[in-house]
Amino acid sequence: MIVLGLTATNGLDEEVARLLGLEHVRVESKVFPDGESYIRIPVSVEGEDVIVVQSTYAPQDKHVLELLLAIDALRDLGARNIVAVVPYLAYARQDRRFREGEAISVKTLLKAIRSMGANALVVVEVHKEYVLRYFEGKAVNVKVAYALAEYFKDKGLDNVIVLAPDKGALPRAQLLAKLLGGEYDYLEKHRDRVTGEITVKPKTLSVKEREVIIVDDIISTGKTMALAARKALEDGALNVYAACAHALLVGNALKLLVESGIKEIVAANTVPVPSEVKVVNVAPLITEAIKQLGTL
Amino acid sequence: MIVLGLTATNGLDEEVARLLGLEHVRVESKVFPDGESYIRIPVSVEGEDVIVVQSTYAPQDKHVLELLLAIDALRDLGARNIVAVVPYLAYARQDRRFREGEAISVKTLLKAIRSMGANALVVVEVHKEYVLRYFEGKAVNVKVAYALAEYFKDKGLDNVIVLAPDKGALPRAQLLAKLLGGEYDYLEKHRDRVTGEITVKPKTLSVKEREVIIVDDIISTGKTMALAARKALEDGALNVYAACAHALLVGNALKLLVESGIKEIVAANTVPVPSEVKVVNVAPLITEAIKQLGTL
Repeated sequence: MIVLGLTATNGLDEEVARLLGLEHVRVESKVFPDGESYIRIPVSVEGEDVIVVQSTYAPQDKHVLELLLAIDALRDLGARNIVAVVPYLAYARQDRRFREGEAISVKTLLKAIRSMGANALVVVEVHKEYVLRYFEGKAVNVKVAYALAEYFKDKGLDNVIVLAPDKGALPRAQLLAKLLGGEYDYLEKHRDRVTGEITVKPKTLSVKEREVIIVDDIISTGKTMALAARKALEDGALNVYAACAHALLVGNALKLLVESGIKEIVAANTVPVPSEVKVVNVAPLITEAIKQLGTL
Repeated sequence: MIVLGLTATNGLDEEVARLLGLEHVRVESKVFPDGESYIRIPVSVEGEDVIVVQSTYAPQDKHVLELLLAIDALRDLGARNIVAVVPYLAYARQDRRFREGEAISVKTLLKAIRSMGANALVVVEVHKEYVLRYFEGKAVNVKVAYALAEYFKDKGLDNVIVLAPDKGALPRAQLLAKLLGGEYDYLEKHRDRVTGEITVKPKTLSVKEREVIIVDDIISTGKTMALAARKALEDGALNVYAACAHALLVGNALKLLVESGIKEIVAANTVPVPSEVKVVNVAPLITEAIKQLGTL
């Protein structure tokens, strides 16, 4: 069994290989002058089980294509079982038809990964776990809460409240709160009838004199997170932490979050992040997930 | 039956719909702030045969992903037969393992298009026609020579010689020469033993006082084409024309070709080209190819 790192691994390929005590191989890759990717697997994989690691952060489509190229090549070259480890799965938020006629993009992606020949799949904190049913093989979703909980436990925070950005994401807050021994709630948007101003605050609980952790799968533009943090601090929160699996931080998201008064942004190492972000390592959880797959 | 144009059609979707007398529908699309594509089919396709048009020029991977999203969505939404028309098929030159371990990228692409649910495929002037076997359905390769021949016939050129850039591409020159009633040959590279200078000239025939057409599937960097044109003009060619299906013109290719003394660059409308390039319309040939598919 070998671990094959593709073009977007953020170091997780090496970490996972080390933890599993397996040989680590880096794919050979380049981009031609016209923009096409080239992939070559530089070792024999005939009869081998291969764990192929590719996170599909931006440029997402390039990284997706390279993953498909690699899986198809592994299949051709006689690999036995292929486990695709996709720490950040792109297109995960387009998980259903919000309007008639829409592509369910994450389904397309998972179908393509499967069609190329992947036997099993490991992802980290996918937006909605039910999408794994679109992959017709064994699939495991790593919950980043376990790594985040370790991080926050080490801080020795008292009187913690964990908030989800919306009702649908409540289970994520619930799990982290359980691991930290705190309470949880979700955020609701309110529009002031007179001024039109939007505020974001917890549905039920008070944040006053509490340590607040807002947890999400992805921080993209950071807008909701920043609004909620600002309001929580106004309402007397001691500190506000923004925690997530995938800190995409699109555009000026980092600036927005810092200016909102958030004390720390904490994220997993599924995507590259700026130095201002505190990083928790999900390689041990990925390793557990791979073991959990069992016989393929 | 409808014609659905995706995000990279260069107008061919409308042309094909018009020629076939079919309803033309444009896909709804956008790109999210993080770089993910969104696709929506704005009409009911249940029980419909759909011709989906997407050329996969740069950014190739984005356009490929959008094609996969659309085909998968059409399949979900109950389309009956799906004909994928891909005027420029990206990754076509990686058509075999030049070195052990390489991905056969064009195979991956065709496998993905098929896996998403396309019943049939139409491409224009694919690099090597045998790659169509990687698509497990009906597939037709449109030969651009028929459109190029019309263009050059209208010029009334006398004493034409058509050159292929290498031996493998000779059938392409042969067909165009046959249609134009001229001779054909292929180019060979020679390295001067003393100076090391590389010249590119026809294997057998002389270009002296002849109208020279160099024909290729793709003009990418334009280097070979420019070298060959320069040499032909030195050797007394009357005029040199660079003809192709897909004028990708990467980097400073256009400048290089113009400076080499090439009289005209002639290309199909499979990819967008700068105004200096003469364009031949392949919509009628694509229409013929669709008819040729017959019952799916």
